[in-house]
Amino acid sequence: MTAGSGALAPELDIARWFNSAPLSLAALRGRVVAIGAFQMLCPGCVANGLPQLQRIYELFPKEAVVVIGLHSVFEHHAAMTPVSLEPFLHEYRIAFPVAVDRHDDPAGMPVTMARYGLRGTPSLLLIDRQGRLRLHRFGHVPDLAVGAAIQQLLDEGEGAIPPVGQEGEVCAVGGDCG
Amino acid sequence: MTAGSGALAPELDIARWFNSAPLSLAALRGRVVAIGAFQMLCPGCVANGLPQLQRIYELFPKEAVVVIGLHSVFEHHAAMTPVSLEPFLHEYRIAFPVAVDRHDDPAGMPVTMARYGLRGTPSLLLIDRQGRLRLHRFGHVPDLAVGAAIQQLLDEGEGAIPPVGQEGEVCAVGGDCG
Amino acid sequence: MTAGSGALAPELDIARWFNSAPLSLAALRGRVVAIGAFQMLCPGCVANGLPQLQRIYELFPKEAVVVIGLHSVFEHHAAMTPVSLEPFLHEYRIAFPVAVDRHDDPAGMPVTMARYGLRGTPSLLLIDRQGRLRLHRFGHVPDLAVGAAIQQLLDEGEGAIPPVGQEGEVCAVGGDCG
Amino acid sequence: MTAGSGALAPELDIARWFNSAPLSLAALRGRVVAIGAFQMLCPGCVANGLPQLQRIYELFPKEAVVVIGLHSVFEHHAAMTPVSLEPFLHEYRIAFPVAVDRHDDPAGMPVTMARYGLRGTPSLLLIDRQGRLRLHRFGHVPDLAVGAAIQQLLDEGEGAIPPVGQEGEVCAVGGDCG
Repeated sequence: MTAGSGALAPELDIARWFNSAPLSLAALRGRVVAIGAFQMLCPGCVANGLPQLQRIYELFPKEAVVVIGLHSVFEHHAAMTPVSLEPFLHEYRIAFPVAVDRHDDPAGMPVTMARYGLRGTPSLLLIDRQGRLRLHRFGHVPDLAVGAAIQQLLDEGEGAIPPVGQEGEVCAVGGDCG
Repeated sequence: MTAGSGALAPELDIARWFNSAPLSLAALRGRVVAIGAFQMLCPGCVANGLPQLQRIYELFPKEAVVVIGLHSVFEHHAAMTPVSLEPFLHEYRIAFPVAVDRHDDPAGMPVTMARYGLRGTPSLLLIDRQGRLRLHRFGHVPDLAVGAAIQQLLDEGEGAIPPVGQEGEVCAVGGDCG
Repeated sequence: MTAGSGALAPELDIARWFNSAPLSLAALRGRVVAIGAFQMLCPGCVANGLPQLQRIYELFPKEAVVVIGLHSVFEHHAAMTPVSLEPFLHEYRIAFPVAVDRHDDPAGMPVTMARYGLRGTPSLLLIDRQGRLRLHRFGHVPDLAVGAAIQQLLDEGEGAIPPVGQEGEVCAVGGDCG
Repeated sequence: MTAGSGALAPELDIARWFNSAPLSLAALRGRVVAIGAFQMLCPGCVANGLPQLQRIYELFPKEAVVVIGLHSVFEHHAAMTPVSLEPFLHEYRIAFPVAVDRHDDPAGMPVTMARYGLRGTPSLLLIDRQGRLRLHRFGHVPDLAVGAAIQQLLDEGEGAIPPVGQEGEVCAVGGDCG
């Protein structure tokens, strides 16, 4: 797991919430937050990313781990509006909170996606109880590794200082995560 | 396999085609036609029905077996327009012809779906070389059975008269196909 | 499907039967026979080959299609004796007839395997109602193709003469089937 | 996760090791030990338990987490001797240490299995760095939960005192674990 730099993870900028009242990272301080960026027409998200988020949501106590699906549409914008997303979430029985990433540019990359420098979907972000980004992975991450990574954040004392500056597992924009 | 009654299968009534020029059952006489009704937001269609159609499309010679995906939207109409369907087909790499079932009533069941009395999606229809409906199944049909059913239609001499009137495997509207 | 040459498929040479009284190809004339060669410690057989044989056994009428698992041990002989095979068949709930291929040379290739020139396990053999070998495949064969191949043999009139001499899909010894 | 009682987990009693020199829990103190009890003819072990052990073995650093496959044969003894086990491990490419549970009674339950009160196979045992049994599960445990459980043991300071006496997730002999 990549250690945080001490800086806070960027705040979410959300146009609309499903399955939840609006959430903010600031208000979730003290809990671990697992954010799964997805697009409803992304096959890897449908087959792997979203079912994994659902498993995280079901396994960990909700007062300790918050799961957020982040709908970060960066292509086919007209096809993945909230009007389409709502029945998608219903048909796929997605129960955890889902946030629609806000667009400044209706045809471009949404705001939260840009803030985090996401390379695409699915991407998994883990934020620790102090609000720092600790893991950022593009593509499929095996459940065994995700379970270990979340537990590690849960096990940190709230005052613990993680090592800083490592970026080993962060996928760089334009790089390749296989 | 259900034997045909001798009557022709109802013609398709299609608003728009993807991956193909317009097709009609009348013009496909002499070939076996496999029609898979689906909705792009139907999880069983995405997980099972559409990949099976793709496997049929890849296995059988195209001059002998025609595969058609029939997008029969009977719910969440605003979410499953052709504007959404087009990138869906692109992202899921669906290469076979896809037909958008026409609506008379924009909020109701589409025309072809009603003509065939489809119970829902996914549904599989097999039409023989003489244009008669020979198999109609709602839900998942194992590949082994589908392969056998298509081959049986291929093996019939074009002039052969199938037994009539059996309906054993036809799923009735309002019935239960498990 | 490979057409038969007109010659009869080699007879089975079996040391012991499970789940069945002794069978012979001669006595099964008039029925299609699907033979799946396997070894109980072959991962591909356990994961794919044997479950496929079980599906064939369950789908097709038993008076039309006979399924035989052929335990052709060509390596690790001491580990795959009938003493081990019996509980294996029990634990994996294999219900179809299983034949132990006889060894002349206790450390070598068994007799039936040699007669058919099998390249390894899993291998699938299809024998038509007239006792001719019609399909011989090494490795995984998709269910859709297997279903079609069996149905094609079922659909042949018993007196029909298949084309001769084609070997397109027969895997040659020492060749490569992916 | 079940907390340990403070008592040490029973020592292993092993007739033979594969893929490793002999190991003992006493000598592994300071490391987390994941023991997966299995039988080579147990379908659930082959499909789920052993692949999960392999994933654990590949994910966690070997100096922190030791994986041991425990071959605890309690049925079909003649079919699952070390003579059969050795090629099984070879064919399934199992790379982690495998221990053959010793029998006092050649037809009964092996010694280590009895010491731990295992209900059957597959069973997963997790032992903390101080040698205490902390998790005991019969049947399939999802990867997400296993990853979290192992990480939790890794994150404990070596001097930390876990809560005692809870047995919530231990499957009782004669009980039912679904």
